[in-house]
Amino acid sequence: MAVKTSEHYLRRARAMKPRVYMNGKRIENITEHPVTRTVVEANKASYEWAMDLQGEGGRLFRRPSHLNGEPCNLYNTLNRSADDLLQRAAAGLYAAEHLGTCIYRCVGCDAFNTLAATTFEMDRDMGTSYNARLMAFLRHVQAEDLTVAGAMTEPRGRRDQKMEQWIDPDLSLRVVEKNDYGIVVNGAKINISGAYASDWTIVLPSGARRPGEEAYAVSFAVPNGEEGMTYICQYTPYSAERELAESDRELGNPRFGQRETSMVVFDNVRIPWERVFLCGETKYAGKIVTRFAQVHRMVCGGSCKVGFGKVMIGAARLIQEFKGLDKVPHVNEQMTEMVTLLETVRACSKVAAIEGREVVPGSGIHFPDDLLGNVAKLNIGNAFWRIMALAGDIGGGLIVTMPSLKDLKNPETREYVEKYLGFGSETPAEEIMKVTKLLQNWTAGLHGVGTWHGAGPLQAQKIMVQRLADFEEMKRLAKEMAGIGGRKADPGR
Amino acid sequence: MAVKTSEHYLRRARAMKPRVYMNGKRIENITEHPVTRTVVEANKASYEWAMDLQGEGGRLFRRPSHLNGEPCNLYNTLNRSADDLLQRAAAGLYAAEHLGTCIYRCVGCDAFNTLAATTFEMDRDMGTSYNARLMAFLRHVQAEDLTVAGAMTEPRGRRDQKMEQWIDPDLSLRVVEKNDYGIVVNGAKINISGAYASDWTIVLPSGARRPGEEAYAVSFAVPNGEEGMTYICQYTPYSAERELAESDRELGNPRFGQRETSMVVFDNVRIPWERVFLCGETKYAGKIVTRFAQVHRMVCGGSCKVGFGKVMIGAARLIQEFKGLDKVPHVNEQMTEMVTLLETVRACSKVAAIEGREVVPGSGIHFPDDLLGNVAKLNIGNAFWRIMALAGDIGGGLIVTMPSLKDLKNPETREYVEKYLGFGSETPAEEIMKVTKLLQNWTAGLHGVGTWHGAGPLQAQKIMVQRLADFEEMKRLAKEMAGIGGRKADPGR
Amino acid sequence: MAVKTSEHYLRRARAMKPRVYMNGKRIENITEHPVTRTVVEANKASYEWAMDLQGEGGRLFRRPSHLNGEPCNLYNTLNRSADDLLQRAAAGLYAAEHLGTCIYRCVGCDAFNTLAATTFEMDRDMGTSYNARLMAFLRHVQAEDLTVAGAMTEPRGRRDQKMEQWIDPDLSLRVVEKNDYGIVVNGAKINISGAYASDWTIVLPSGARRPGEEAYAVSFAVPNGEEGMTYICQYTPYSAERELAESDRELGNPRFGQRETSMVVFDNVRIPWERVFLCGETKYAGKIVTRFAQVHRMVCGGSCKVGFGKVMIGAARLIQEFKGLDKVPHVNEQMTEMVTLLETVRACSKVAAIEGREVVPGSGIHFPDDLLGNVAKLNIGNAFWRIMALAGDIGGGLIVTMPSLKDLKNPETREYVEKYLGFGSETPAEEIMKVTKLLQNWTAGLHGVGTWHGAGPLQAQKIMVQRLADFEEMKRLAKEMAGIGGRKADPGR
Amino acid sequence: MAVKTSEHYLRRARAMKPRVYMNGKRIENITEHPVTRTVVEANKASYEWAMDLQGEGGRLFRRPSHLNGEPCNLYNTLNRSADDLLQRAAAGLYAAEHLGTCIYRCVGCDAFNTLAATTFEMDRDMGTSYNARLMAFLRHVQAEDLTVAGAMTEPRGRRDQKMEQWIDPDLSLRVVEKNDYGIVVNGAKINISGAYASDWTIVLPSGARRPGEEAYAVSFAVPNGEEGMTYICQYTPYSAERELAESDRELGNPRFGQRETSMVVFDNVRIPWERVFLCGETKYAGKIVTRFAQVHRMVCGGSCKVGFGKVMIGAARLIQEFKGLDKVPHVNEQMTEMVTLLETVRACSKVAAIEGREVVPGSGIHFPDDLLGNVAKLNIGNAFWRIMALAGDIGGGLIVTMPSLKDLKNPETREYVEKYLGFGSETPAEEIMKVTKLLQNWTAGLHGVGTWHGAGPLQAQKIMVQRLADFEEMKRLAKEMAGIGGRKADPGR
Repeated sequence: MAVKTSEHYLRRARAMKPRVYMNGKRIENITEHPVTRTVVEANKASYEWAMDLQGEGGRLFRRPSHLNGEPCNLYNTLNRSADDLLQRAAAGLYAAEHLGTCIYRCVGCDAFNTLAATTFEMDRDMGTSYNARLMAFLRHVQAEDLTVAGAMTEPRGRRDQKMEQWIDPDLSLRVVEKNDYGIVVNGAKINISGAYASDWTIVLPSGARRPGEEAYAVSFAVPNGEEGMTYICQYTPYSAERELAESDRELGNPRFGQRETSMVVFDNVRIPWERVFLCGETKYAGKIVTRFAQVHRMVCGGSCKVGFGKVMIGAARLIQEFKGLDKVPHVNEQMTEMVTLLETVRACSKVAAIEGREVVPGSGIHFPDDLLGNVAKLNIGNAFWRIMALAGDIGGGLIVTMPSLKDLKNPETREYVEKYLGFGSETPAEEIMKVTKLLQNWTAGLHGVGTWHGAGPLQAQKIMVQRLADFEEMKRLAKEMAGIGGRKADPGR
Repeated sequence: MAVKTSEHYLRRARAMKPRVYMNGKRIENITEHPVTRTVVEANKASYEWAMDLQGEGGRLFRRPSHLNGEPCNLYNTLNRSADDLLQRAAAGLYAAEHLGTCIYRCVGCDAFNTLAATTFEMDRDMGTSYNARLMAFLRHVQAEDLTVAGAMTEPRGRRDQKMEQWIDPDLSLRVVEKNDYGIVVNGAKINISGAYASDWTIVLPSGARRPGEEAYAVSFAVPNGEEGMTYICQYTPYSAERELAESDRELGNPRFGQRETSMVVFDNVRIPWERVFLCGETKYAGKIVTRFAQVHRMVCGGSCKVGFGKVMIGAARLIQEFKGLDKVPHVNEQMTEMVTLLETVRACSKVAAIEGREVVPGSGIHFPDDLLGNVAKLNIGNAFWRIMALAGDIGGGLIVTMPSLKDLKNPETREYVEKYLGFGSETPAEEIMKVTKLLQNWTAGLHGVGTWHGAGPLQAQKIMVQRLADFEEMKRLAKEMAGIGGRKADPGR
Repeated sequence: MAVKTSEHYLRRARAMKPRVYMNGKRIENITEHPVTRTVVEANKASYEWAMDLQGEGGRLFRRPSHLNGEPCNLYNTLNRSADDLLQRAAAGLYAAEHLGTCIYRCVGCDAFNTLAATTFEMDRDMGTSYNARLMAFLRHVQAEDLTVAGAMTEPRGRRDQKMEQWIDPDLSLRVVEKNDYGIVVNGAKINISGAYASDWTIVLPSGARRPGEEAYAVSFAVPNGEEGMTYICQYTPYSAERELAESDRELGNPRFGQRETSMVVFDNVRIPWERVFLCGETKYAGKIVTRFAQVHRMVCGGSCKVGFGKVMIGAARLIQEFKGLDKVPHVNEQMTEMVTLLETVRACSKVAAIEGREVVPGSGIHFPDDLLGNVAKLNIGNAFWRIMALAGDIGGGLIVTMPSLKDLKNPETREYVEKYLGFGSETPAEEIMKVTKLLQNWTAGLHGVGTWHGAGPLQAQKIMVQRLADFEEMKRLAKEMAGIGGRKADPGR
Repeated sequence: MAVKTSEHYLRRARAMKPRVYMNGKRIENITEHPVTRTVVEANKASYEWAMDLQGEGGRLFRRPSHLNGEPCNLYNTLNRSADDLLQRAAAGLYAAEHLGTCIYRCVGCDAFNTLAATTFEMDRDMGTSYNARLMAFLRHVQAEDLTVAGAMTEPRGRRDQKMEQWIDPDLSLRVVEKNDYGIVVNGAKINISGAYASDWTIVLPSGARRPGEEAYAVSFAVPNGEEGMTYICQYTPYSAERELAESDRELGNPRFGQRETSMVVFDNVRIPWERVFLCGETKYAGKIVTRFAQVHRMVCGGSCKVGFGKVMIGAARLIQEFKGLDKVPHVNEQMTEMVTLLETVRACSKVAAIEGREVVPGSGIHFPDDLLGNVAKLNIGNAFWRIMALAGDIGGGLIVTMPSLKDLKNPETREYVEKYLGFGSETPAEEIMKVTKLLQNWTAGLHGVGTWHGAGPLQAQKIMVQRLADFEEMKRLAKEMAGIGGRKADPGR
């Protein structure tokens, strides 16, 4: 059957031998290293959910393949109706609530959808056969229930220069050779989430649109750790903390940690033609970028971050109760503000799904409403920082000044820590400290910047809103009401 | 047939003889007085839309009666599904876009729905027959396609006193006598929209909930201008301007003007039992308040104000173009911000409708999701002021310093005004001035305060959000992630 | 003596015969017309304050002439120290608190200072004698204690065109002829405050800076109602209300009303050379604009609007107390927020004064710190709308729905109004209604847009902040801390 | 002489033997441990500045002792004029700009000032001799140029309980015994900055005000590592990162790191009478809290965080330039917004100093204006999070996804990192990475929560603003303008 257990995945992950570096050293075993194994854990969870037939997980993370009707993991399927989009959004929310970090199959899923619509369009327009290739690849992925990461490359040269002015042409990923076997690519993707623990990675082009930029208009799938690929991991204070910890239990998000990304470098990597889904067609590169954003902003901005926010509110609420502040008006006002912000974003995301439609007629692939998806992301960008500030207020200065949980074990300090961090409440200090540590993870770490930039910085969304807004309709309404050329508003009394 | 023309309504309005005062004088004819006739015009529009069978109006403003299947004006029907709620919200948006002020049948419609559910519940619980009375009244209203205003009374005594401490018991509307015929009521409703031009007014109780407050737990329907009723109209600078104008064309919203309210005083008004829908049952008074808010906040906060906002954006966009500012980044950022704010509110309102449900099982009446309705209102309260500020920025200081359109007619000044208010553009000064006047109406008038308080001030919504938020679920998620008593989050490595 | 009574001014005002139009009609007597007389009243107040030797007024509104040491009204003097700037800011605050509208001598005062510094600079650089002309004019103004309005003209053509592309060269004020007597000017200033009731008006150039724009680089003084000048007044709902009122007492700001502006048209107006202070020197036109903004933003943004805000807070506080809401936490939070916003702006303005300096060395004229002045204005632009929203919340929906005070006099309605608008408190309804009417004036009228645009829209301030910020210093600090090339931050451990 | 070199301090620090724990282990040598030594470094800097006689440091960090006229380090002196307060604020700004963390002598300095005024008042009122004790202690501190930390204890029991209801009386620091020698105290201060590396710590009481709380009204000085004292350090991801780093150069703030705090536990610590400055006088405990906040909020909120913000803006500006985004309007708008926020706070702090005054007449000690100090803190609380968000936007996702600087050294990855993190600019990747790492320190770490809570959470400031605002004056202005009982506003026309 096409829905596999997490054991299947773990076995494959153990066999992966990607070239991964972190903090100046090579990582030999991604399933054992304390940092990279959090990625494996998150991927495993996605298999566990799909197996949870009695629970919410089974309902959300399973969907029949449109190719053969077999049940598949949601992340390896296509959105073929507004209801599918609602399921997609709900799954994103569930994943976020339970992981507190990326589910690393998310971008791959959105990449499949983007390419499914766009290769259909290319084939229709140009008589190519990209769509068949993609479907063959998808069929394989579904059959084995593989994890697929997605990587939309970016222009990394100076922004005030055109691509051809760059000091190095590799500053965005490009095709350097085409031959009978396939293509050879050079370049890098900065900031890809969790690819080193995925079976495959789908690469999408940055929006190379102009004549002369054909080499950059490229999309393909590449297996984990293909020759020529190097993963250089992010390294943050949170990485160090996890490396040094004796037990995950000391940490803010014990099992799943931070969204772990790496730079992935392609140094003359060979891709066979059957895994190439775009090669030189600049006209469609821009469409891929737009459509990917269309689906990804709904999920990443509008669902996932709502899940994170719910955890923050829950933690702040616990602290409020531990301290005996349940009835203090200004704290309750803050709780209300946080809930209002989250519900607002959830609504935007849901309407984006409901108002979704088939953007390439005949392709069968549905995309969320673009305006609302962008609005969801714009709202969460600001809301997330605000929720951080408010949860940080309720959580207290202890969020950034708390001793280690090890000080609670150390017999020389244990009694002091227990007494003074117990808030004089009936809750054990350990529980208070764990909730505070969880809040540290959310309000004093990587999530503010991460949320803002995930799925593109806010300015990208603003540009889309400006482009998508129906100003003509609004001008028409204003003219009618002002009585300019309009019958209704001016009865000529 | 049960959908009538605006002529039918106008004939009735001409025959109404309510006791109406404005600015110290009695108004003899509400269909002729320049201010009160704007209410008549708005009500007329609601009949015109329902007759527009080819257009959007016919689609939005007609709905079959659940009593007999006859087509009715939407405002005289009940919401019996989530789709009905969507239609209700969409109609509210349409009305707002085209009127720029209240459609004065809106509160009455929401009052019918509130009472339909609650009288059903009362009859079920207590064996009363309120629901049958209400349906008989509704049947009459539908048959004649009458306009019905709604009035939720308020406690007008000091807020730091209980009702029984007030210096005057009439400071909220109350029953002063019961007899065979019916009841006698005393008191007032401050700020009721457009009642003096409605065929009927339904009165809802303020939330009298405590023992001893039975007299205040009262609901009934009363015909226009019943003996003992006095309407004392609002009087604002905009009223004066309309009184003084030679033609509606000089004004910011020529045909429909401002939301016109009045205080309505009940001085020993007699109500027959067949029009009484609540009388002393304090337990249900609070439910009526909550349910009314539940439906009204979705429409008034989430739909209507979005329509107003679209007009503001449209007008600001016209000015931007007249001035040649189309490509100026900071102005386009402002346009984007306004669109984002409105789409956000629209999404909240839509999800409130979609997530609507039958709150009294068996009643058949659907209400929007309460949390989202409140969130919609909270968002628009702040958003509206922000849109006012931004539209005011783009519209320019001229919004508050512009000469009269009469100065454009006066031969001694015409040439100057034409030249200097034409912005050196090809648009005639008259058009620029009319759009600017429209912006004055929106950004330098009654709408900021009106939007904030309509459907209750923001604090009322905050209290509801606090009450409705599922903090237990969020605490559970936080505990799971922090590894407190939870299996998933703590693998015990 | 050089400080005159308000009677002196009133006598002159009665003798003025400017060509003033409002709402399509000529105004014959500006001291009698209900709207224009509010300007006369405000000017009168400035004389009364300077005579109030025992009180705050005398301390704030008197200053010795630097020309002859005679005491003068502050508005006819120059700022020659940081202390003078503090006095100027404090006077602006006092005026605003007591007028609730413009003191119409404010712009003229700032124009004198701007020209004093810049004509000094021109004479020094070019050997002209503009400064002597200006001082002669100032001496006359001081001797007679005259009121002087100021008018900075603006480009009124399309913003995407250069001046020479405009369809009409008069779209900014310009010199059309020079001769032995002086110059002839054509054009208009839109939105000048109160000029029709001032003895003189000083015209400043818009920032004509480019070669070919010399005709627009012009500054001069012109007496009230000079031949060829026409004033076309603003006309708003508030104008109409005042026209219709039987007594000022019915109005929101009884004595002083709204900031009254007019468009002033110059149709071939002749100005003798001795009143010309700039004529063709484009290099200095930009400096005049900048310096005027430098002083005016401190006062208009940072002082005046703080005074307005204090009145709003005071009125909201009264309503809070009338309603018995003194101890309600969320209302007190709102009070706190309003106070915080105002104190913030006051601080910016004060520091602008304290950090003021002589920008043209040797001129003796001090200007506020430019960065802080712009920051003050930026803050108040947003803060004012926020205070409007909050005061409007506390004031209640009655702000926009209240009956007229005449309904309180009308025997047919009096009792009802007294009862229901008395809030069940011991405060008479009349007092509650007057305070509510005052809040209407502030929160439902012209002040939001007016505050935003007065002294230039916010974007103008943003541009200045961007230009004035010392980014080099901040980059240096960042590099030092990051250990880039810096000794201190990197001990090379 | 009373200004010593940093070597003097370092020698003493090496000799300190406090009982310090971090992450479950005892720290033997605070001058060597990679985390605790950052505190030593910051303290050393304060000595270096005072020695920098040619530079800004010497000007800002020296001040003559009021006891004997000897030059002292600013942190060991009293503020005896508004100019002193300005110097104090400027020194705080300078320290923050150069350290990017606490200068750990700051709270001690403010504690000296607070006690100097309050002991003077107590002696005057009660004939005690606290002031002489304090001055003797200060004389000693000045003579040796010692570092003094400050610790205001807090109630750590449930907030919905009174102190006597707490499950443990030690939940705030208290006197458990008085004898001939002095007092014995029990309890803890959570979150004291850097005390383990200070020569002395001054303890201030929490605001025990009620009868029965006398034991908690206690203030004293205690030398580093007195018997019975245990310091349990904060432990955050940043601590771990520093522990693991091979060189400070890999870190975001290489030399000075994070604000390092510890919980300090007093387990039956004996304090001789000559170091006791308050003991049982509840009436004055509240005054101490208020006065300490009065001076500390000006510096900590209004100066220090402005310095931090300047570093953030500088770093963001560098990234903007590296990327070639200098002319992009929306980025420049963000720069402008950040500068505006900081200048606003700076102004509030400066006016707090300028409007400072002697609050206890005759004491000679000046305190900043309380309202403005609180307003400064309120503004920075929100502004800091906003600046974090904006600097994080400009800095890019790399802030949270960047590889280690070690990956730049590793020959297997060096070339890749150099190429792809060089932005195609002429700036070496190392410099870009260091600036990005600096931004990580500021936008993805401890500073948001720290800034909000330092000097008390925002609600504490709001309460003060509410208490300090002159509502009576504002009500008077409103009444005058509304024409209620006022002559001026109502000419009785």
